[in-house]
Amino acid sequence: MSKVLVIGAGGVGVIAALSLWFKRESDISLVVRSDYDKVLKHGYTIESCDYGHLEGWKPDHVYSTVEDAAADANNKGYDYVVVTTKNIIDGPADSRVPNIIRPVLEKNKKLHGAQLTTHILLIQNGIDIEKEIWAEFPSEEYKYTVLSGIQLIGSTKIGAGHISQIGKDHLSCGAFDPQDTAAVHAANEFVRMYNNEGHNFVEFDPRVRYSRWKKLLYNAAINTSTALVGLDVPRCLEFGVDKKSTESELFHPAMREIIAIAASEGIIIEEEFITMFTEITRKKVFKPSMCVDREKGQLMELEVILGNPIRIAKENGVPTPTLSMLYNLLVLVQAKLKEQKGLLKFDEVTASLLDK
Amino acid sequence: MSKVLVIGAGGVGVIAALSLWFKRESDISLVVRSDYDKVLKHGYTIESCDYGHLEGWKPDHVYSTVEDAAADANNKGYDYVVVTTKNIIDGPADSRVPNIIRPVLEKNKKLHGAQLTTHILLIQNGIDIEKEIWAEFPSEEYKYTVLSGIQLIGSTKIGAGHISQIGKDHLSCGAFDPQDTAAVHAANEFVRMYNNEGHNFVEFDPRVRYSRWKKLLYNAAINTSTALVGLDVPRCLEFGVDKKSTESELFHPAMREIIAIAASEGIIIEEEFITMFTEITRKKVFKPSMCVDREKGQLMELEVILGNPIRIAKENGVPTPTLSMLYNLLVLVQAKLKEQKGLLKFDEVTASLLDK
Repeated sequence: MSKVLVIGAGGVGVIAALSLWFKRESDISLVVRSDYDKVLKHGYTIESCDYGHLEGWKPDHVYSTVEDAAADANNKGYDYVVVTTKNIIDGPADSRVPNIIRPVLEKNKKLHGAQLTTHILLIQNGIDIEKEIWAEFPSEEYKYTVLSGIQLIGSTKIGAGHISQIGKDHLSCGAFDPQDTAAVHAANEFVRMYNNEGHNFVEFDPRVRYSRWKKLLYNAAINTSTALVGLDVPRCLEFGVDKKSTESELFHPAMREIIAIAASEGIIIEEEFITMFTEITRKKVFKPSMCVDREKGQLMELEVILGNPIRIAKENGVPTPTLSMLYNLLVLVQAKLKEQKGLLKFDEVTASLLDK
Repeated sequence: MSKVLVIGAGGVGVIAALSLWFKRESDISLVVRSDYDKVLKHGYTIESCDYGHLEGWKPDHVYSTVEDAAADANNKGYDYVVVTTKNIIDGPADSRVPNIIRPVLEKNKKLHGAQLTTHILLIQNGIDIEKEIWAEFPSEEYKYTVLSGIQLIGSTKIGAGHISQIGKDHLSCGAFDPQDTAAVHAANEFVRMYNNEGHNFVEFDPRVRYSRWKKLLYNAAINTSTALVGLDVPRCLEFGVDKKSTESELFHPAMREIIAIAASEGIIIEEEFITMFTEITRKKVFKPSMCVDREKGQLMELEVILGNPIRIAKENGVPTPTLSMLYNLLVLVQAKLKEQKGLLKFDEVTASLLDK
């Protein structure tokens, strides 16, 4: 039985843990930071369109930190580490993914050396998110694979230990490096462990990079725009000049730039997805994640959604006027959020940013 | 003695009324909407860097509406109507400038026919603001001129009947139509009536269109950007990528586009003003008007600052990628403000804007 550690106990993480637990083919540990005491005592209350109403549900093990989870692994270690936190590469050091997962990788290395491969599954937005893990954990020293999880799910933590899932779970799981046969095998195995016929939908993703560029059509163009103006998607569309400008001057040009960047590395995203992603939430009064984060005063996944694509575009000589404007404006909003959280200091007397 | 009616009793309007009153060369009426009762009883409390501390100050006449002011004008009428309200051409009908001044023009017309010329001085931001007045009041029917007031002043209403002026008043006054000799004469006369040696600074503006394009460098590029991200100017500059992107990717390109639009109608704005306007508030922890309006939930002067320049650019075939992006985003923010004020209705069930 595989041992799985799920990190991040928001709407995504808890439903991921529940889905694996439901199948009963793995041993599930969940790291619950803020609601630990509550969950340990009373378990979760979950209203799920996939699994019904659950009261007092707990996975096999609950920990308040990754360190505790790593320590408690004793001679077993973890086969899978599923990361469902937001990926904020410009955030505080302790919230960056390599630092979050480090205790597990170190423990597995100490326990098993080259025997146990740790499969790191990133259920997260953005492009190039695997690279900082490859950069920080040399493959001669650590034995691991990095897997991609792309998820569509309408699931939110609506209170302490309380999850509401209103959109069916649809997960695509694959290997960031399709040449890595261990990773491909582990991804397929995860799909099997996660699949609950009639409840959720999970599939093996043979083209992770393609899928991630495709999802960026939505996130780089629509998620970002809603965050800037603070409106749900249908309002953005309807409030444009002649009800047209948001689509024709913002969403579509931004998406065409993503398609051009993907093409510059040989990945062809079909033009029809521009229409598909514009229509997908046209009638859903729904605020995408970056918009919600801004309103909640939380850092946005700006760099993995917009910064990384623009950096690739620069290297490959692809012009990105629309994406760059969105980025240069959102960088300011992100800094505003950082200042509110005390992550940067601005001195009003000298009117300048204080370097750390 | 000229009769002057000042409309709008915010930081700009009250100091304008005070400056004219101080000189004692005109009879000053002020339309005070929200603070009427308070001002009528107790007058204004004013802390002014130009005129010192005043307690219980009142102009010669105070009215709560323009209609009352027009009615009370009896057989004199008004020589000057000074409009200091915000110019929101996409706002509610009764707040649009032609509708605001209509009672005075009608009264003057009834009293004097072609005898009295009404000089309409617009102390307001933006370009093409005179045109809707020309369009709504045919010159065969109404005898009037339209004058331009461009003001630099740090003056704010900080409470009911309470004005704080911290930046010296600098007013440029000229004729929108430099061929209109009556307008040029009236502008010069106003400068004389407004000028208080050693207190304020006022000058005749021989090139109104040039001056307005010049001021738009700041307003179309900087005022707009701050409104989108909700930050003062130094933070916008310091929070950019490498502390550079706001300047190099937002402010400067937007200003160059304004220069190009002005050039398309034969007006040359010198490049050096790009640096001047970038530097002017680099060290001032200060939020420009549109940023303040958004935060207060008030409509922004978006159309006269950004919509009109872009429309001119379109007619003249000038590309405006930066300004158009700012505009297409701010149109959404403006609609959000309109929805908050009940000026438009969005139906969440059909996810669509309800037409009036």
